[in-house]
Amino acid sequence: MGEIKHLVIVKFKEGVVVEDIVKGMEKLVSEFDLVKSFEWGQDSEGPEMLTQGFTHSFSMTFDKKEDYAEFQSHPNHVEYSATFSAAIEKIVVLCFPSVRVKPSA
Amino acid sequence: MGEIKHLVIVKFKEGVVVEDIVKGMEKLVSEFDLVKSFEWGQDSEGPEMLTQGFTHSFSMTFDKKEDYAEFQSHPNHVEYSATFSAAIEKIVVLCFPSVRVKPSA
Repeated sequence: MGEIKHLVIVKFKEGVVVEDIVKGMEKLVSEFDLVKSFEWGQDSEGPEMLTQGFTHSFSMTFDKKEDYAEFQSHPNHVEYSATFSAAIEKIVVLCFPSVRVKPSA
Repeated sequence: MGEIKHLVIVKFKEGVVVEDIVKGMEKLVSEFDLVKSFEWGQDSEGPEMLTQGFTHSFSMTFDKKEDYAEFQSHPNHVEYSATFSAAIEKIVVLCFPSVRVKPSA
Protein backbone atom coordinates (compact mmCIF):
# COMPACT_ATOMS: atom_id res chain seq x y z
CA MET A 1 0.00 0.00 0.00
CA GLY A 2 1.37 3.39 -0.98
CA GLU A 3 1.22 6.59 0.94
CA ILE A 4 -2.02 8.51 1.42
CA LYS A 5 -2.38 11.59 -0.75
CA HIS A 6 -4.61 14.50 0.20
CA LEU A 7 -5.27 16.60 -2.88
CA VAL A 8 -7.14 19.90 -2.87
CA ILE A 9 -7.83 22.04 -5.90
CA VAL A 10 -9.52 25.39 -5.53
CA LYS A 11 -10.69 28.58 -7.08
CA PHE A 12 -10.30 31.44 -4.63
CA LYS A 13 -12.81 34.23 -4.22
CA GLU A 14 -11.97 37.52 -5.84
CA GLY A 15 -9.92 39.79 -3.59
CA VAL A 16 -8.43 36.98 -1.52
CA VAL A 17 -4.73 37.38 -0.79
CA VAL A 18 -3.62 33.91 -1.82
CA GLU A 19 -0.12 34.48 -0.44
CA ASP A 20 -1.52 34.75 3.07
CA ILE A 21 -3.54 31.56 2.62
CA VAL A 22 -0.48 29.70 1.38
CA LYS A 23 1.68 31.04 4.22
CA GLY A 24 -0.91 29.84 6.70
CA MET A 25 -0.87 26.40 5.16
CA GLU A 26 2.92 26.26 5.17
CA LYS A 27 2.92 27.18 8.85
CA LEU A 28 0.27 24.60 9.65
CA VAL A 29 2.10 21.85 7.80
CA SER A 30 5.39 22.72 9.49
CA GLU A 31 3.77 21.97 12.85
CA PHE A 32 2.99 18.35 11.97
CA ASP A 33 5.56 15.62 11.49
CA LEU A 34 2.63 13.52 10.31
CA VAL A 35 2.61 15.49 7.07
CA LYS A 36 5.34 13.82 5.06
CA SER A 37 5.27 16.09 2.05
CA PHE A 38 3.57 19.27 0.95
CA GLU A 39 3.57 20.78 -2.51
CA TRP A 40 1.43 23.41 -4.18
CA GLY A 41 1.18 25.26 -7.43
CA GLN A 42 -0.73 27.81 -9.44
CA ASP A 43 -1.92 27.32 -12.99
CA SER A 44 -2.05 30.76 -14.51
CA GLU A 45 -2.16 29.84 -18.18
CA GLY A 46 -4.47 26.89 -18.65
CA PRO A 47 -7.60 27.42 -20.77
CA GLU A 48 -10.89 27.53 -18.85
CA MET A 49 -12.04 24.48 -20.82
CA LEU A 50 -9.36 22.47 -19.00
CA THR A 51 -9.03 24.22 -15.64
CA GLN A 52 -12.78 24.75 -15.16
CA GLY A 53 -11.77 27.94 -13.37
CA PHE A 54 -9.65 26.16 -10.77
CA THR A 55 -6.30 27.85 -10.24
CA HIS A 56 -4.47 26.26 -7.30
CA SER A 57 -3.50 22.77 -6.28
CA PHE A 58 -2.34 21.70 -2.82
CA SER A 59 -1.06 18.23 -2.17
CA MET A 60 0.02 16.56 1.06
CA THR A 61 1.08 13.02 1.77
CA PHE A 62 0.76 10.91 4.89
CA ASP A 63 2.17 7.50 5.76
CA LYS A 64 -1.24 6.10 6.58
CA LYS A 65 -4.92 6.91 6.78
CA GLU A 66 -4.86 7.24 10.55
CA ASP A 67 -2.25 9.99 10.30
CA TYR A 68 -4.44 11.89 7.86
CA ALA A 69 -7.42 11.50 10.20
CA GLU A 70 -5.36 12.75 13.14
CA PHE A 71 -4.23 15.79 11.15
CA GLN A 72 -7.77 16.54 9.98
CA SER A 73 -9.24 16.50 13.46
CA HIS A 74 -6.44 18.47 15.15
CA PRO A 75 -7.65 21.87 16.49
CA ASN A 76 -4.95 23.73 14.52
CA HIS A 77 -6.22 22.19 11.29
CA VAL A 78 -9.85 22.81 12.18
CA GLU A 79 -9.04 26.46 12.87
CA TYR A 80 -7.13 26.86 9.62
CA SER A 81 -9.89 25.14 7.66
CA ALA A 82 -12.36 27.81 8.71
CA THR A 83 -10.09 30.51 7.25
CA PHE A 84 -9.46 28.48 4.12
CA SER A 85 -13.14 27.71 3.56
CA ALA A 86 -14.04 31.37 3.80
CA ALA A 87 -11.56 32.18 1.01
CA ILE A 88 -12.69 29.73 -1.63
CA GLU A 89 -15.27 29.94 -4.35
CA LYS A 90 -15.10 26.28 -5.25
CA ILE A 91 -13.13 23.23 -4.24
CA VAL A 92 -12.48 19.57 -5.00
CA VAL A 93 -10.92 17.39 -2.32
CA LEU A 94 -9.64 13.89 -3.08
CA CYS A 95 -7.92 11.54 -0.67
CA PHE A 96 -6.51 8.25 -1.88
CA PRO A 97 -3.73 5.69 -1.58
CA SER A 98 -1.24 6.86 -4.16
CA VAL A 99 -0.03 4.39 -6.77
CA ARG A 100 3.43 5.36 -7.92
CA VAL A 101 4.19 3.99 -11.36
CA LYS A 102 7.27 6.04 -12.11
CA PRO A 103 9.95 6.26 -10.93
CA SER A 104 9.58 2.62 -9.99
CA ALA A 105 10.39 1.89 -6.36
CA MET B 1 11.98 27.00 -10.52
CA GLY B 2 10.53 23.63 -9.59
CA GLU B 3 9.45 20.85 -11.85
CA ILE B 4 6.31 21.12 -13.98
CA LYS B 5 3.33 19.20 -12.69
CA HIS B 6 0.53 18.01 -14.95
CA LEU B 7 -2.49 17.16 -12.82
CA VAL B 8 -5.68 15.61 -14.14
CA ILE B 9 -8.72 14.76 -12.09
CA VAL B 10 -11.66 13.01 -13.66
CA LYS B 11 -14.99 11.35 -13.28
CA PHE B 12 -15.31 8.47 -15.71
CA LYS B 13 -18.47 7.64 -17.60
CA GLU B 14 -20.52 4.75 -16.29
CA GLY B 15 -19.42 1.41 -17.70
CA VAL B 16 -15.88 2.49 -18.48
CA VAL B 17 -13.23 -0.09 -17.56
CA VAL B 18 -10.93 2.19 -15.64
CA GLU B 19 -8.23 -0.49 -15.39
CA ASP B 20 -7.81 -0.42 -19.16
CA ILE B 21 -7.55 3.36 -19.18
CA VAL B 22 -4.91 3.26 -16.46
CA LYS B 23 -2.96 0.51 -18.22
CA GLY B 24 -2.96 2.59 -21.38
CA MET B 25 -1.62 5.56 -19.48
CA GLU B 26 1.08 3.48 -17.81
CA LYS B 27 2.15 2.19 -21.21
CA LEU B 28 2.19 5.67 -22.68
CA VAL B 29 4.23 7.09 -19.83
CA SER B 30 6.73 4.22 -20.01
CA GLU B 31 7.52 5.26 -23.59
CA PHE B 32 8.69 8.75 -22.61
CA ASP B 33 11.82 9.52 -20.65
CA LEU B 34 10.50 13.08 -20.59
CA VAL B 35 7.93 12.00 -18.02
CA LYS B 36 9.89 12.07 -14.79
CA SER B 37 7.21 10.72 -12.49
CA PHE B 38 3.71 9.33 -12.73
CA GLU B 39 1.31 8.64 -9.89
CA TRP B 40 -2.40 8.03 -9.75
CA GLY B 41 -5.07 7.18 -7.25
CA GLN B 42 -8.74 6.56 -6.70
CA ASP B 43 -10.84 8.17 -4.00
CA SER B 44 -13.60 5.73 -3.24
CA GLU B 45 -14.75 7.08 0.12
CA GLY B 46 -14.83 10.85 -0.04
CA PRO B 47 -18.19 12.56 0.38
CA GLU B 48 -19.69 14.09 -2.79
CA MET B 49 -19.57 17.50 -1.08
CA LEU B 50 -15.76 17.29 -1.21
CA THR B 51 -15.09 15.18 -4.30
CA GLN B 52 -17.76 16.85 -6.47
CA GLY B 53 -18.12 13.45 -8.07
CA PHE B 54 -14.49 13.25 -9.19
CA THR B 55 -12.93 9.87 -8.44
CA HIS B 56 -9.47 9.63 -10.01
CA SER B 57 -6.34 11.72 -9.96
CA PHE B 58 -3.40 11.37 -12.34
CA SER B 59 -0.22 13.31 -11.84
CA MET B 60 2.91 13.55 -13.98
CA THR B 61 6.00 15.66 -13.61
CA PHE B 62 8.36 17.08 -16.19
CA ASP B 63 11.68 18.85 -15.84
CA LYS B 64 10.52 21.82 -17.86
CA LYS B 65 7.60 23.28 -19.76
CA GLU B 66 9.10 22.41 -23.13
CA ASP B 67 9.20 18.72 -22.18
CA TYR B 68 5.53 18.85 -21.26
CA ALA B 69 4.73 20.52 -24.58
CA GLU B 70 6.71 17.88 -26.47
CA PHE B 71 4.86 15.09 -24.67
CA GLN B 72 1.48 16.73 -25.29
CA SER B 73 2.01 17.08 -29.01
CA HIS B 74 3.53 13.63 -29.58
CA PRO B 75 1.33 11.41 -31.81
CA ASN B 76 1.24 8.65 -29.16
CA HIS B 77 -0.16 11.10 -26.62
CA VAL B 78 -2.62 12.56 -29.10
CA GLU B 79 -3.88 9.08 -29.90
CA TYR B 80 -4.22 8.13 -26.23
CA SER B 81 -5.97 11.41 -25.46
CA ALA B 82 -8.77 10.55 -27.87
CA THR B 83 -9.42 7.30 -25.99
CA PHE B 84 -9.17 9.02 -22.64
CA SER B 85 -11.49 11.87 -23.64
CA ALA B 86 -14.14 9.42 -24.79
CA ALA B 87 -14.13 7.77 -21.36
CA ILE B 88 -14.64 10.78 -19.14
CA GLU B 89 -17.73 12.51 -17.92
CA LYS B 90 -15.88 15.49 -16.48
CA ILE B 91 -12.31 16.63 -16.05
CA VAL B 92 -10.10 19.29 -14.55
CA VAL B 93 -6.57 19.72 -15.90
CA LEU B 94 -4.02 21.90 -14.16
CA CYS B 95 -0.41 22.42 -15.18
CA PHE B 96 1.92 24.43 -12.98
CA PRO B 97 5.45 24.83 -11.65
CA SER B 98 5.37 22.83 -8.45
CA VAL B 99 6.46 24.50 -5.23
CA ARG B 100 7.79 21.90 -2.84
CA VAL B 101 7.60 23.08 0.76
CA LYS B 102 8.19 19.76 2.47
CA PRO B 103 10.42 17.85 2.55
CA SER B 104 12.68 20.85 2.09
CA ALA B 105 15.23 20.42 -0.66
